[in-house]
Amino acid sequence: MKFKHLKYLLLPLTMLMSGLANAETLEFEMTIDEMTVDVAPGFKNKVWAFNGQVPGPLIRAKEGDRLKVKVINNSTLAHTVHWHGTLQTNSWKMDGVPNVTQKAIEPGESFVYDFIVDRPGSLWYHCHVNVPEHVGLRGMWGPMIIDPKEPAEVEKEVTKEAIMMFSGWNSEVAMEYGKGGHPTEKSDYFSINGKSFPITQPLRVKEGDVLRIRLYAASSEVAYHLHGHDVLVTHKDGLPLESPYWADVVHVPMGGRVDLIARMDNPGIWINHDHIEHHTSNAGKMPGGAVTIIEYEGVETEDWYSWKDKQYQPDFYMSETMKKGSGLHNIDLFRGKAPESDRSARKKKKRKKKSKAN
Amino acid sequence: MKFKHLKYLLLPLTMLMSGLANAETLEFEMTIDEMTVDVAPGFKNKVWAFNGQVPGPLIRAKEGDRLKVKVINNSTLAHTVHWHGTLQTNSWKMDGVPNVTQKAIEPGESFVYDFIVDRPGSLWYHCHVNVPEHVGLRGMWGPMIIDPKEPAEVEKEVTKEAIMMFSGWNSEVAMEYGKGGHPTEKSDYFSINGKSFPITQPLRVKEGDVLRIRLYAASSEVAYHLHGHDVLVTHKDGLPLESPYWADVVHVPMGGRVDLIARMDNPGIWINHDHIEHHTSNAGKMPGGAVTIIEYEGVETEDWYSWKDKQYQPDFYMSETMKKGSGLHNIDLFRGKAPESDRSARKKKKRKKKSKAN
Amino acid sequence: MKFKHLKYLLLPLTMLMSGLANAETLEFEMTIDEMTVDVAPGFKNKVWAFNGQVPGPLIRAKEGDRLKVKVINNSTLAHTVHWHGTLQTNSWKMDGVPNVTQKAIEPGESFVYDFIVDRPGSLWYHCHVNVPEHVGLRGMWGPMIIDPKEPAEVEKEVTKEAIMMFSGWNSEVAMEYGKGGHPTEKSDYFSINGKSFPITQPLRVKEGDVLRIRLYAASSEVAYHLHGHDVLVTHKDGLPLESPYWADVVHVPMGGRVDLIARMDNPGIWINHDHIEHHTSNAGKMPGGAVTIIEYEGVETEDWYSWKDKQYQPDFYMSETMKKGSGLHNIDLFRGKAPESDRSARKKKKRKKKSKAN
Repeated sequence: MKFKHLKYLLLPLTMLMSGLANAETLEFEMTIDEMTVDVAPGFKNKVWAFNGQVPGPLIRAKEGDRLKVKVINNSTLAHTVHWHGTLQTNSWKMDGVPNVTQKAIEPGESFVYDFIVDRPGSLWYHCHVNVPEHVGLRGMWGPMIIDPKEPAEVEKEVTKEAIMMFSGWNSEVAMEYGKGGHPTEKSDYFSINGKSFPITQPLRVKEGDVLRIRLYAASSEVAYHLHGHDVLVTHKDGLPLESPYWADVVHVPMGGRVDLIARMDNPGIWINHDHIEHHTSNAGKMPGGAVTIIEYEGVETEDWYSWKDKQYQPDFYMSETMKKGSGLHNIDLFRGKAPESDRSARKKKKRKKKSKAN
Repeated sequence: MKFKHLKYLLLPLTMLMSGLANAETLEFEMTIDEMTVDVAPGFKNKVWAFNGQVPGPLIRAKEGDRLKVKVINNSTLAHTVHWHGTLQTNSWKMDGVPNVTQKAIEPGESFVYDFIVDRPGSLWYHCHVNVPEHVGLRGMWGPMIIDPKEPAEVEKEVTKEAIMMFSGWNSEVAMEYGKGGHPTEKSDYFSINGKSFPITQPLRVKEGDVLRIRLYAASSEVAYHLHGHDVLVTHKDGLPLESPYWADVVHVPMGGRVDLIARMDNPGIWINHDHIEHHTSNAGKMPGGAVTIIEYEGVETEDWYSWKDKQYQPDFYMSETMKKGSGLHNIDLFRGKAPESDRSARKKKKRKKKSKAN
Repeated sequence: MKFKHLKYLLLPLTMLMSGLANAETLEFEMTIDEMTVDVAPGFKNKVWAFNGQVPGPLIRAKEGDRLKVKVINNSTLAHTVHWHGTLQTNSWKMDGVPNVTQKAIEPGESFVYDFIVDRPGSLWYHCHVNVPEHVGLRGMWGPMIIDPKEPAEVEKEVTKEAIMMFSGWNSEVAMEYGKGGHPTEKSDYFSINGKSFPITQPLRVKEGDVLRIRLYAASSEVAYHLHGHDVLVTHKDGLPLESPYWADVVHVPMGGRVDLIARMDNPGIWINHDHIEHHTSNAGKMPGGAVTIIEYEGVETEDWYSWKDKQYQPDFYMSETMKKGSGLHNIDLFRGKAPESDRSARKKKKRKKKSKAN
């Protein structure tokens, strides 16, 4: 038995070094806000939202860049941010683990994370305080894409990027902060980028597109299945595989990421979804859950098509934002409602009631 | 980082093309019937059974063949058939997804699926309506094996084929159609090819056999463990791995398939089973669940052996049917009981009661 | 498609043969005792403990050695021992499966397992009677490391060994033997080597160490995440991968093992844990569960560090015992409390009460 790939043992270090030329320093602010998001028709969930949105804003940088992110806690409980995938070489105190690398950021306080993004790939960030509630049920996660100095050949061919972050939700504790996360609880809603079918969005492609999907098992494991196409699994946790492999069901364990490439060579309307059956309903109402559809441009659909009159949002898989290059990019369609708007909504209702009563 | 296997990106297309010579057209009928199956001792489950059986009939064809399958819905709810693994090149309306590629097949109606089997391997078919109930709890799944134009060397050595489809069941909703599939429900029975230990069957082999097992996680994820042999994992979802690997516990995520090769070089009596502990009892009665035994020919067993006087059914893993080549093959031992037989059984009971009463 | 690694099909046999030179015979005794272990602060569990400890003693041998292990059942229920990973070539009756390869060992009785350790790697042993209770809830598992005749290059570089066995527990049935293991039950405690955070132990390393971690999913699947380091996955179920791969979240299905290598090149204090969120609390109390911390020598920590005044036990990951070579090695820190000590403890309490009363 031989390990021909021993050189890879040193990979992170060399990556880091080659990354130092042309490195930029990027400075951002990110708030943590109490918001309410619509996950499925008729189902709302209170979250602690990064810059008010779930998923959090897309952070994009180049391998070797320096990031300074000021995180401002506008919520009523303590939080941190862990930059999952970043090695934090020489900066372990920026790792975001409460009572291990830092004291948690208390309500009203802030903390500046300052570190080199020392390894490329599909990374993410999430809170590391009371993870089963904060990450598992309150939407405290977002994508961080670090572009490699030397992309693989297959990466250079990509014409369309898509990010899919999978999560579970629990309607029993959805509206009460500080509740939820007990190990015997079960999720009853499941989503991609914070939404359950049918309020997910089509992923629209053109014949000839080389589609890269970055799967994130943010708070729910996933067995992703795309109809009509085999997929090439190219990266595990943002790291390139020496032996990519073909599949039609791709398992991502919780916390993990898998990148895959699919050639858009088969025009049609193709469902794609988590194949874990319990993840494909909205609290038992079917169809629902972690389900979406790839639509080829120019394919005609019938009157009975589920999404015949769909209001299309082209950036739901962050394909548009991924064209923008480095930066911290807010994406308005992921924005929740602030408690203020709740309150004003309630006031309106009251007034209505009153006017009825009169 | 390099992707030496880039050619694989074009694999499905070239496979399709090389498959056009010598292609046959195969025409079948497949009914969907309301049946009751015995899953474990004392545990029955109402199913919608393809051609009256669970698993459904074995469909076998050669890469490039054309399949025309008329599906006749004799049940009281709507269904479709999705041909999982088939790419449906140029035939997306044959993909079997309700309100996406077709309207569901209503009770008493039929639909003809007409498509080229455009990629080889261990495929399967299943309903795509209300999947958490229809696939998860009502047995709507069966195997579809598409023989490749160019089998791998290791495939040519195989002397014995076995198909194992794993599923879960829920006794609380077992006998009521239209119930079940809520995400917080848990399965309490687990089976291989529709049966739980001890009413599974031995897999009998000869020393020297090269055994190929095709694992299907139809409605339950599985961590398959074979005693006495390491296994070579050769295919993922029917697609050959560039780097096959050795294992003794093989995880298959829900919806996925894994092919493995095991050399029968170690005569004995060897249990093999799902290593997920909750899958190895019948509603808490142990031993049970997704468990079976490989028996080498000529090995003597003791009086206390669990299966000393087992009634042997040689086709339980479809090893006999796999010798038959292309076709749609019903397998009688998987046949359930029709409601008629239930009713006549009830009548008999009534008559007995009456005669007692008189 | 080609299988260049076909030679591996014969690997186990050739390994066995090359193992015959210099083979030793090792004889051990191992009892099964009724004990109580502290899993988490305030949470105790009754177990059937091999040599009184959970995990059981570390068994270490060289590929090709002969093992004779006399197992003495001091408990009140029947058990067996299955040597998971051993092929039992020509010794299937030593495989430890009740009513298949042997009759279970009744209370007060013993059985001598006598076999060649015919394949190397990260193996383990566990009871095979009523597995969902005995293995799932009663701690009947321990590590067995079989050193290969020809270690891989990367294995020769290892300077520090660590063994992590993951398991779940269920407080509802914790203190009543013969209860538990129903498939609808859920675990509420999760542990590494039998302990939940914060009563797990730091894994202390030096900069420059090449750390090998052997992950065992003994009675709980795991998605292992180490902060601050990517890991090279080198072995699956103790068997070397032709294509090792890099990852930051490593899934191990129940019953499986994964070996990984991490270069200790990034001084700091690094949490590492199961990323399955439900596994990171103690019955809902956070932080807890399958969580631990790697501490680099010489790194200064702050006053608020969780483990500032930790009582350090250097052998918690068996790193010290792994230096001892072949043998059956008891590890005192895993020892539970015998019922006698419980009883005498209770007596003492009573006496105290009495003396208070007087």
